[in-house]
Amino acid sequence: MKAIKIGLMGLGNIGTGLYKALEMNRAEVEAAAGAPVLIHKIFEKDVDKKRDIPVDPRDFTQNPRDIIDDPEIDIVVELLGGIQPATSYMLDAMKNKKHVVTANKAALAADLDKLSETAAANGVLLRYEASVGGGIPILNALTSVLTGNKFEEVLGIVNGTTNYILTKMTDLGLDYNDVLKDAQEKGFAEADPTADVEGHDAANKLTILIALMFGKYVRPEDIPTTGISNITKGQIEEAKAKGCRIKLLASAKSSGGKLEYSVKPVQLENTHPLSGVSNEFNAIFVRGNAVGELMFYGKGAGPLPTASAVLGDIIEIVRSLPTS
Amino acid sequence: MKAIKIGLMGLGNIGTGLYKALEMNRAEVEAAAGAPVLIHKIFEKDVDKKRDIPVDPRDFTQNPRDIIDDPEIDIVVELLGGIQPATSYMLDAMKNKKHVVTANKAALAADLDKLSETAAANGVLLRYEASVGGGIPILNALTSVLTGNKFEEVLGIVNGTTNYILTKMTDLGLDYNDVLKDAQEKGFAEADPTADVEGHDAANKLTILIALMFGKYVRPEDIPTTGISNITKGQIEEAKAKGCRIKLLASAKSSGGKLEYSVKPVQLENTHPLSGVSNEFNAIFVRGNAVGELMFYGKGAGPLPTASAVLGDIIEIVRSLPTS
Repeated sequence: MKAIKIGLMGLGNIGTGLYKALEMNRAEVEAAAGAPVLIHKIFEKDVDKKRDIPVDPRDFTQNPRDIIDDPEIDIVVELLGGIQPATSYMLDAMKNKKHVVTANKAALAADLDKLSETAAANGVLLRYEASVGGGIPILNALTSVLTGNKFEEVLGIVNGTTNYILTKMTDLGLDYNDVLKDAQEKGFAEADPTADVEGHDAANKLTILIALMFGKYVRPEDIPTTGISNITKGQIEEAKAKGCRIKLLASAKSSGGKLEYSVKPVQLENTHPLSGVSNEFNAIFVRGNAVGELMFYGKGAGPLPTASAVLGDIIEIVRSLPTS
Repeated sequence: MKAIKIGLMGLGNIGTGLYKALEMNRAEVEAAAGAPVLIHKIFEKDVDKKRDIPVDPRDFTQNPRDIIDDPEIDIVVELLGGIQPATSYMLDAMKNKKHVVTANKAALAADLDKLSETAAANGVLLRYEASVGGGIPILNALTSVLTGNKFEEVLGIVNGTTNYILTKMTDLGLDYNDVLKDAQEKGFAEADPTADVEGHDAANKLTILIALMFGKYVRPEDIPTTGISNITKGQIEEAKAKGCRIKLLASAKSSGGKLEYSVKPVQLENTHPLSGVSNEFNAIFVRGNAVGELMFYGKGAGPLPTASAVLGDIIEIVRSLPTS
């Protein structure tokens, strides 16, 4: 089979992770995909940034159309982040009959219907495993081998920053602000932590989970969302005294034809499979009417875990192509 | 798309579960598969057994060739258990260009190479998600979206009977023999528990995991295997005092080109994600060089969870068929 050419949009942390993972596991990827997978061109404005990968400067472009309109490119991998211009780029690429892989939960949550319809209308695949739970292969499971179930419930620890902060508050008895500062210094929280600590990132991910599990598109701004910035040391201690831990849960539950959903801090009993999920780890607990309770656990962020999910999507797309 | 016809071999607990799950989730299965899925014929010797499903007696046959040689049957689902005659039936069905789905870990572990080669030689699919971890969709993940990784390690709690016994010994401070008797009364252990408690069932599952993760076929009898029948109350207490729990682990680790594997009781620290896996639950922990640590948790047995995995395999096979 001829080599598959990737147009990569964005060579930040995740893009660099993808480049590294592809170098590191070239033989595995080619064996699994049934074809060589090559990064053909990279759209990236910051050409001069120091990167510890041997990328050829001639592969860079500063014009997104060089990716979107290149007839040689089979798959566009969008790792820019943010709603726009990423969404427009993805839509244009799909209209040009390119498959799209993205890790961009904000763009997906904002325009999931339009993006999905555009993929279907153009006969291309849109895959986004990395957008929820990082490296955890939850979306593929929900949309392939678990589809023989009626889904009843999902509970997710889907934001590593808030889980790290809550874990440190619980284990070390510290105040929210002290842990946030420490997390920022260690790179587990951003300089402006709002999207994480106020639950907006988790709401984006819940929009995606709800769409895949319950076939409904609920906009993230319509999900009742409470973050963790008001959680006090006292509340953490109170929960501990009851044999519980406070976790920021993104949850949705279907019962009697009604769907309820929220993002909020919840006291989970220590015996619940999610209560032991610590630090920056993510986990998603789902219940289906045949399979019962399932939990998926792993690294919800980071360049290489996220790259694993992006590579998985690329491999699945290549496998689905006609072999002629 | 025309209806897909299933030839079901075995209408015991799991077969009955499959029948029920298919009735219960007919709309979901058809939507996911893109075609109606019908149980066309059932090979089952015990026709008179009381079953709480409305199966038509005319669908039964007592001759396996009525399934294997029926040109109308697209997929044979083998739920007989045991190595023979199940393996011969599967081989003959594949030679007749039928796809095969099985939950039969003993047959797979004994003849994985021959079964896989026969599937490839005949251009049919052989899928067996239910054979490891019951409803947990681990095998599909390892063979699809995680294939961009070099796998480094697997640790599995893959036998529900032994995990139930060890959990009760730990939580209630009971002796092995007392818990075994209780488990037998509750149906969590068989009258002859040897295959479970001596680790042979776990070794069968480890053979399957090793083949899919490391591309090596290691016969179950070549896996160093120790069961739990000699675990004493004292050893459990000793582990507890150290902040550990004893779990029967099926494990394989690749390092420096060398593969090490075993099934044996291991002291796991309470902070390990597998240590909180209690009672009849299963969990599989894997490490890949890109994705890092992952864990999959769920019901490792039972008619409906197992049926979920079998249905998932059926759906994936139907999706792969040409749509003409």
